[in-house]
Amino acid sequence: MADFDKLKKLCQLIRYDILTSTTEAGSGHPSSCLSAVELMTTLFFGAESNSAGGFYHFDLKNPHNLVNDRVIFSKGHAAPLLYSLYHAAGAISYREILSLRKFNSNLEGHPTPRFPYVDVATGSLGQGLSAGVGMALGIRLTIENRKWKVGVEDRRSKVEKNQSSIPKVFVLLGDSEMAEGQVWEAIQIASYYKLNNLIAIADVNRLGQSTETMLGWDLKTYTKRIESFGWNTIIVEDGHDISQVYKAFNQIESDRIRQSQMKSDKISKNTADYIRLNPITSERPVMILARTIKGKGVSFLENKEGWHGKPVPKDMLKSALKELGKVDLKVKGEIQLPKYQILNIKYQKDISKIKNIPNYKMQDLVATRMAYGDALVALGNDNDKVVVFDAEVSNSTFSEKFAKKFANRYFEMFIAEQNMISTALGLSKLGFIPFASTFAAFLTRGFDQIRMAQYSAPNLKIVGSHCGVSIGPDGPSQMGLEDLAMFRSILNSIIFYPADAVSTFKLTEVMANKNGLFYLRTNRKETPVIYDEREEFKIGGSKIHYIKDQKSKIKTTNQKLKIKTLIIGAGITLHEALKAQEKLAQEGIETIVVDLYCIKPIDQQTIQQLAINISNIIVVEDHYPAGGIGEAVLSVLNTMIEKNQSSIVNRLLSINFIHLCVRKLPRSGTPEELLHFEEIDSEAIIKAVKKLPPSSLISP
Amino acid sequence: MADFDKLKKLCQLIRYDILTSTTEAGSGHPSSCLSAVELMTTLFFGAESNSAGGFYHFDLKNPHNLVNDRVIFSKGHAAPLLYSLYHAAGAISYREILSLRKFNSNLEGHPTPRFPYVDVATGSLGQGLSAGVGMALGIRLTIENRKWKVGVEDRRSKVEKNQSSIPKVFVLLGDSEMAEGQVWEAIQIASYYKLNNLIAIADVNRLGQSTETMLGWDLKTYTKRIESFGWNTIIVEDGHDISQVYKAFNQIESDRIRQSQMKSDKISKNTADYIRLNPITSERPVMILARTIKGKGVSFLENKEGWHGKPVPKDMLKSALKELGKVDLKVKGEIQLPKYQILNIKYQKDISKIKNIPNYKMQDLVATRMAYGDALVALGNDNDKVVVFDAEVSNSTFSEKFAKKFANRYFEMFIAEQNMISTALGLSKLGFIPFASTFAAFLTRGFDQIRMAQYSAPNLKIVGSHCGVSIGPDGPSQMGLEDLAMFRSILNSIIFYPADAVSTFKLTEVMANKNGLFYLRTNRKETPVIYDEREEFKIGGSKIHYIKDQKSKIKTTNQKLKIKTLIIGAGITLHEALKAQEKLAQEGIETIVVDLYCIKPIDQQTIQQLAINISNIIVVEDHYPAGGIGEAVLSVLNTMIEKNQSSIVNRLLSINFIHLCVRKLPRSGTPEELLHFEEIDSEAIIKAVKKLPPSSLISP
Repeated sequence: MADFDKLKKLCQLIRYDILTSTTEAGSGHPSSCLSAVELMTTLFFGAESNSAGGFYHFDLKNPHNLVNDRVIFSKGHAAPLLYSLYHAAGAISYREILSLRKFNSNLEGHPTPRFPYVDVATGSLGQGLSAGVGMALGIRLTIENRKWKVGVEDRRSKVEKNQSSIPKVFVLLGDSEMAEGQVWEAIQIASYYKLNNLIAIADVNRLGQSTETMLGWDLKTYTKRIESFGWNTIIVEDGHDISQVYKAFNQIESDRIRQSQMKSDKISKNTADYIRLNPITSERPVMILARTIKGKGVSFLENKEGWHGKPVPKDMLKSALKELGKVDLKVKGEIQLPKYQILNIKYQKDISKIKNIPNYKMQDLVATRMAYGDALVALGNDNDKVVVFDAEVSNSTFSEKFAKKFANRYFEMFIAEQNMISTALGLSKLGFIPFASTFAAFLTRGFDQIRMAQYSAPNLKIVGSHCGVSIGPDGPSQMGLEDLAMFRSILNSIIFYPADAVSTFKLTEVMANKNGLFYLRTNRKETPVIYDEREEFKIGGSKIHYIKDQKSKIKTTNQKLKIKTLIIGAGITLHEALKAQEKLAQEGIETIVVDLYCIKPIDQQTIQQLAINISNIIVVEDHYPAGGIGEAVLSVLNTMIEKNQSSIVNRLLSINFIHLCVRKLPRSGTPEELLHFEEIDSEAIIKAVKKLPPSSLISP
Repeated sequence: MADFDKLKKLCQLIRYDILTSTTEAGSGHPSSCLSAVELMTTLFFGAESNSAGGFYHFDLKNPHNLVNDRVIFSKGHAAPLLYSLYHAAGAISYREILSLRKFNSNLEGHPTPRFPYVDVATGSLGQGLSAGVGMALGIRLTIENRKWKVGVEDRRSKVEKNQSSIPKVFVLLGDSEMAEGQVWEAIQIASYYKLNNLIAIADVNRLGQSTETMLGWDLKTYTKRIESFGWNTIIVEDGHDISQVYKAFNQIESDRIRQSQMKSDKISKNTADYIRLNPITSERPVMILARTIKGKGVSFLENKEGWHGKPVPKDMLKSALKELGKVDLKVKGEIQLPKYQILNIKYQKDISKIKNIPNYKMQDLVATRMAYGDALVALGNDNDKVVVFDAEVSNSTFSEKFAKKFANRYFEMFIAEQNMISTALGLSKLGFIPFASTFAAFLTRGFDQIRMAQYSAPNLKIVGSHCGVSIGPDGPSQMGLEDLAMFRSILNSIIFYPADAVSTFKLTEVMANKNGLFYLRTNRKETPVIYDEREEFKIGGSKIHYIKDQKSKIKTTNQKLKIKTLIIGAGITLHEALKAQEKLAQEGIETIVVDLYCIKPIDQQTIQQLAINISNIIVVEDHYPAGGIGEAVLSVLNTMIEKNQSSIVNRLLSINFIHLCVRKLPRSGTPEELLHFEEIDSEAIIKAVKKLPPSSLISP
């Protein structure tokens, strides 16, 4: 048994930290922290001397070690509790605790990875369990993956000996956030994938921010719902009674030990009975449902509305602290180390250059989404850490190519995009390289998850197929027309939008080789291969297309200065631009076409250099007007002006700028009809060029 | 009893329509339609002569009449089935059926309101039930709302006499889409609001697009889940057996009649027994869970993978049609009329000008979110059709002001933003004027729902508080920094971002008075009142601020031509711009400040007119670089060039353009620290101005 008296003392210290740090900060959510103090203190420190050897195993010196258990505070506003736990463990000082929410502190208002014991940022509610699903999957995959290169064989044998040692992922859920659909997406997928190393702790304190939750303290209904979704549940009637909380965690441990004995063929009669009575215990995730009191420990906060997100005012702090009794400010809890060897697995292998790319022949018609699938297979062959997610459209995005070859590293996420994004992020935190795909339009479903990922030092490759009106007859609901705006708005995102199979293949490889938050936009429609397989593609790059005659001339005579019109396209519209270029050339109007395959960061240098000699820029894109390629190009022209590069500014400033994009509400039709209707086809480009002042088209 | 033979004939005709129309179109989802034929045909035509007087009541001549029942195809890819039902009812011709997915047809690939019997566009899965929740709420509210002006007293009395006559909302769900969290958000809220006029029909055909669903045909687990969420369920073991389907719909009708008898105090002993045994039947929404076969009716499609989203090829059509047997192409079904008087209620009242605005005094500190709450109350007083939604942060967005005064028109949506957006859209389809608010950051959760709303001829007012880094210590998870990009990307959105209480109040009024998809961005932080209550604000407007001395000078001497620098701000940054203006003036540098309170449509005219005389434009915004105000201004400058307004182009083209915005990953801190860190405070503006070429600052 654990030392309950010591746990109580630790709870006192943690309450003291929560109250003083939030009052000092002048903001924060102490009442939401106080309800979960016993739950989390018992998890962290509750089993220092019990037979199970501890509930939470974590090496404070190696916070990212694979053998650590994980804790995610999905209710991110309980951050002060999180920080206080690590203070109680001796990992951070009380001085740091008092820096809560201050500008130079790593103890932010809601947890971010700036705090070293946090993997994923939380604070937008309902996302933590999905990240936990990703981590629990990642742990399982690490164990299962026999090809894992560094030291895993050792680890596997150890782990197999004792299933109860599989690293666990604990997720603290608020009851309010259980209204989020994403939580139920995570719940259903966790049971589908039988993630018995995932443990959710629901802090049912009845009160939301402004009102009571839909279910209040109705633990019975919570239990029914959770169990109907294939989880085991454990009810804790009083989440502030340490012995009850202890019993709950201990029950999970005992179940795991029994299960492990099962697996290692040491089944006693008792164990067999247990398994018979709990037939699928061993394959189920577990949720602890604890009835708690918001504001517990301070009488004027307890179970009261109106205190959400409010610190105790300075003049009331003394009386609040008095209610804690005599706090032992020196008490320290001990977090158990993982019971087996600490492995320092190096996560990020540089993927070797893929030598053989598929035999795409110039001018062959290949959809870029198809090339994406090909690239996944090549990457999968090369590196065990490449994992792939899809929201049940793998036969449209062509991630199915990977799924067919690497079934154990393909995760069907069904039609639940929010969970897919957060799960992929979670998996990346175990060193995997996740690709997640669906229709570009449906990625908007995961915008909040993508937004939050940017605060988690993400390594995430998101792929959206079926972009733009060029998908044709399915109609606007299926058309990604806002996706570039969405991904551009993310601060440090990288966006590719290739026009052919070769560039798509190679850019998928680039994505895999570099950490970051990537978006790849692919087309439904087939497009001709226009690049040789030796061509190089890079972050921040673009390709310049002259018509053939021009190219040879330019090389020898530097005639390019004479070309006055630049057409910028990407994806489907690049091909329209190339068609226009050809026809215009026949009429004696020379143009340069740029394939802006990297939308962000944009190829500033190339655009600048071209702009020096240009009179007209036409941007043509299969996207709505705001936030897409047109505005990206405008911004980069503006950047030049900002930098005051006076040598080129004068030339630049006389440029005519035309932006062709989707300006009318689209509808069903053929791709050609829709490109024409929206005036983003070659005909529209030619028309736009011809409307320019004739003098601007020809070099003097 | 209904005429089952005739129903079978109708099913044959509908299958014929589905198969021929999709083959003709060369795309579409016939197999997903075929599984639901009996379900929907029985609903539409199944009770022509039964005692309950029909299941579905709809006046084809008045599709938007309030007394109609509603049908939503949440599985929008079953659109050909929807169209075929209305063909079978004689509402459209077979020729129209064959126009499916063609450019000029209203029969789009997925339903949109271009088809007259569709209220909300579907096709992004998992949204239809939420829209149905909104409509069911709207119907109930219409009945309950004693103040409803036009003819409602009549209707109320009729309706109260027979509860079974309350218009119903039927939602056809696919089993695949039930993986979407939003579906569970809708399910939980429907039972919370006891929407017994909401009936979901789950077409459990086992197969998704690329694979089997998580639950396959496990109706038992579906039932457990749905019932644990507070719904009644009715299982139909064979969804292609018309008598079973009929029985299911009839059971709902019988329950409703019993319930109605209860309410009208005519409780027979039998009824009382029934109620006792089904204690909350009368308050529960109902879901029919039907086991069906994808592709039913055509042997080579039935229950086969690989046929999702694929029409029968032309050369196989004949053999497919042969399997239908002899189809009676002339058979017509009759949709029952609503049983009571058809009321042509005029929906959209012009809200009268609100005369008394709160007594905001110049320079008083009032948060714009507070003024939003004040405006809601004023609007609520003025017009019964104003309804308000919030995602459990009403005490932050200040929608609680409305909630406290008009409890019956305030709908707490809890922390489930996706459902909130679609529900609000649904309610608008009954003539209400819905406002829906949460933190700007969390609106990203509803992007797909907002995206889809644009295809539903929306009347939707969305409000996001706590925008930008200026919220301070809560940290980046709570900061709306992508919201302007998100809303700008929507094709026909209107975006307000007012800087003070008066403009916020008046713009909220503007939103209420005009149909469309609106976004209002409000601040957490208090800002001084800067406008007199007589000031006018409008869509596409802005306000010009000169420093006081300038203003008087300008009026008399037209000196404004001498000011060379324009600073554009909005919301919090407008106040920084005004501070900078004042300080710069003290140093002899005159500037014009524009309050761009309407971000979209942008005030092109004002910016153009000012730009004629300007050398420098500085845009300063509390938003990430891409897709926000900076790019909006660049685009409008570009528009001028595009239009080739040569008289002003030359002046315009020599403008220095500076864009100050959030360029570094933010963190916790005070608002002031963060505005400074991101270089969007008055100091940063002054610095930017001083870095400009001195010659550009002063008029020659």
